[in-house]
Amino acid sequence: MDTITKPTLILDEAQCKANIKKMSDKAKRLNLTFRPHFKTHISSTIGEWLRDEGVNKITVSSVSMAQQFARYGWKDITIAFPFNILEDIAINRLPENIRLNLVVESPHVIAELRKRITRDVGIYIKIDTGNHRAGISADDYKTINAILDGIDMGNQLHFVGFMVHSGQTYHVQGKQAVEKIHRDTVDQLRKLKQQYIKTRRHLILSVGDTPSCSLSDYFEDIDEIRPGNFVFYDMMQHQIGSCDVEEIAVALACPVVAKHPDRNEIVLYGGAIHFSKDSVKNTSGETMYGQLAAFNDKGWHAHNELNYLKTVSQEHGILKVTNQVFQEIEVGDVVAVLPVHSCLTANLMRKYQTLNGKEIKAINLY
Amino acid sequence: MDTITKPTLILDEAQCKANIKKMSDKAKRLNLTFRPHFKTHISSTIGEWLRDEGVNKITVSSVSMAQQFARYGWKDITIAFPFNILEDIAINRLPENIRLNLVVESPHVIAELRKRITRDVGIYIKIDTGNHRAGISADDYKTINAILDGIDMGNQLHFVGFMVHSGQTYHVQGKQAVEKIHRDTVDQLRKLKQQYIKTRRHLILSVGDTPSCSLSDYFEDIDEIRPGNFVFYDMMQHQIGSCDVEEIAVALACPVVAKHPDRNEIVLYGGAIHFSKDSVKNTSGETMYGQLAAFNDKGWHAHNELNYLKTVSQEHGILKVTNQVFQEIEVGDVVAVLPVHSCLTANLMRKYQTLNGKEIKAINLY
Repeated sequence: MDTITKPTLILDEAQCKANIKKMSDKAKRLNLTFRPHFKTHISSTIGEWLRDEGVNKITVSSVSMAQQFARYGWKDITIAFPFNILEDIAINRLPENIRLNLVVESPHVIAELRKRITRDVGIYIKIDTGNHRAGISADDYKTINAILDGIDMGNQLHFVGFMVHSGQTYHVQGKQAVEKIHRDTVDQLRKLKQQYIKTRRHLILSVGDTPSCSLSDYFEDIDEIRPGNFVFYDMMQHQIGSCDVEEIAVALACPVVAKHPDRNEIVLYGGAIHFSKDSVKNTSGETMYGQLAAFNDKGWHAHNELNYLKTVSQEHGILKVTNQVFQEIEVGDVVAVLPVHSCLTANLMRKYQTLNGKEIKAINLY
Repeated sequence: MDTITKPTLILDEAQCKANIKKMSDKAKRLNLTFRPHFKTHISSTIGEWLRDEGVNKITVSSVSMAQQFARYGWKDITIAFPFNILEDIAINRLPENIRLNLVVESPHVIAELRKRITRDVGIYIKIDTGNHRAGISADDYKTINAILDGIDMGNQLHFVGFMVHSGQTYHVQGKQAVEKIHRDTVDQLRKLKQQYIKTRRHLILSVGDTPSCSLSDYFEDIDEIRPGNFVFYDMMQHQIGSCDVEEIAVALACPVVAKHPDRNEIVLYGGAIHFSKDSVKNTSGETMYGQLAAFNDKGWHAHNELNYLKTVSQEHGILKVTNQVFQEIEVGDVVAVLPVHSCLTANLMRKYQTLNGKEIKAINLY
């Protein structure tokens, strides 16, 4: 910590590995293929920690990410994003020895894939079970059949199964509310499986959101999970109920540059270009861009939610704190702030420093 | 445009140069030193466009940015951020031939600077005229005097003047509302000047926010302006009233990956890791993360505000559009989206492609 002079993303390696082991063990216990999403950590090193737990299939969110992780020896990659037909050449250039899966939600894109793709690709059909971001309704058999017909017409297209991201779990709080959404998703997918399994004997069902994967044990007929955020968790996941605050494995170390006793506010070097700008409401209903924590010998411990990042501008972060915490913090200190959305924070920071002082770089996507 | 396959930040070079010329001409007309903020474009090339207009003093928001722009021949740099005493060594290592100015808002930091700094530095005192992010009140003579005394005790510290960022203009709309805030700021600063000019004959007053610098002509006794965002502008500035939508000089080119006719929504490859997550309300009161535009021969033209980026997740953007626009856009098209906050978008994208296809890189801050 003594060497930190500017915003630095600190990684609790032991906690991150514990999070990985917990999710991996759960997948094994429930007999689920564990295909973690790498968009959260975008790191080859953390990828190896997942490999150490037996992971050999991964999820990414862009062709660029697939290209990079292919270089690090990953041979079974799903790009979990509606396939962008403009990236056909990049797809064709990916190493041949990689099993590559794409996601499709329209017969039109399947027709384009048949014309443009010169390699074998697996195809997931993207299903929308209520998130309404992307995908087709689970009861839209007409479109699903048209996609399946289109897949069958292409020699190099192979149907893998149905994929869902129940992102609507991000808008609720508590195990019960997450469970309700997740069960509905699973039940919609089960119906689809019943409908198609006779003619497509190898089809799989794949679900992905970290809240459901963290909180539920209901995975009847589900074959694969693709959570990503669980490696770090964050304040958003904590508020949903996916994790304890102690399970959050990253904290942004921020230098204290000014104090304002008239309003119990502390100015940090650490803003929107470090945290990004996702927010949650704290226990008092105030908008919060991060949760104050304090570094200690073992890592950090979170203060209560009355001590929080109140605003972020480009490089400034403004902490609102209690009287007591205000007294404890001095200009020149380095405080810890638990991010609201660790995926976006990691994407901005692009490297980690472990509690032991080891630097871990994210892959270069630029 | 034909070569674009993934999110790409398009720069209208002519418009950017026009924005630069307009602000530069205004500064000349009003006899103001023009010290533009480089945190918006973070580009050595765009820096040269400013130099072409006679700029030789610049503003940056971090020591890292000062280090980088020093390499590109900038010799008078103000780091407009409350000085972070942990970066003392980095400051001391900056080339000696650079005139460097720091911002201070407490006697404590001045005392630390005296102990830590081994080079000449100019000191601005940061004044808070109502933004309440950083700085001291314009009537807090006790603190101001203590800082001035502290400066005088250091052989290498030189008082430059008083600096304000009236960020509160970002929360209002229209010239009149901006003008009201700006006049109040200017009048507070004028009082300070009257108070101190007899003993500090060279002190300057420096203001910075793009809305005030764009909209007001009231700069009585002000010596320096430091706007940054004006080089590109964005939808936030447009909504404040700082610019016409035609003056926005950057647009994010995003591939269309899916269409949802049931809800007039279009899925883009382009999300929070490209735009960041600042939002404004559109004319219908809906939260908007960007404004849809269409590329044409000359650049782009904005659609009306009923066609907007409704949500962004990590890589997905969801456009909400009218029936007519929905019909015009196809999967595989590349659409233009005007960002809400161009500083954060540029920071994430880190390079520009001009309308002529030239690539301009941002400096590397990592």
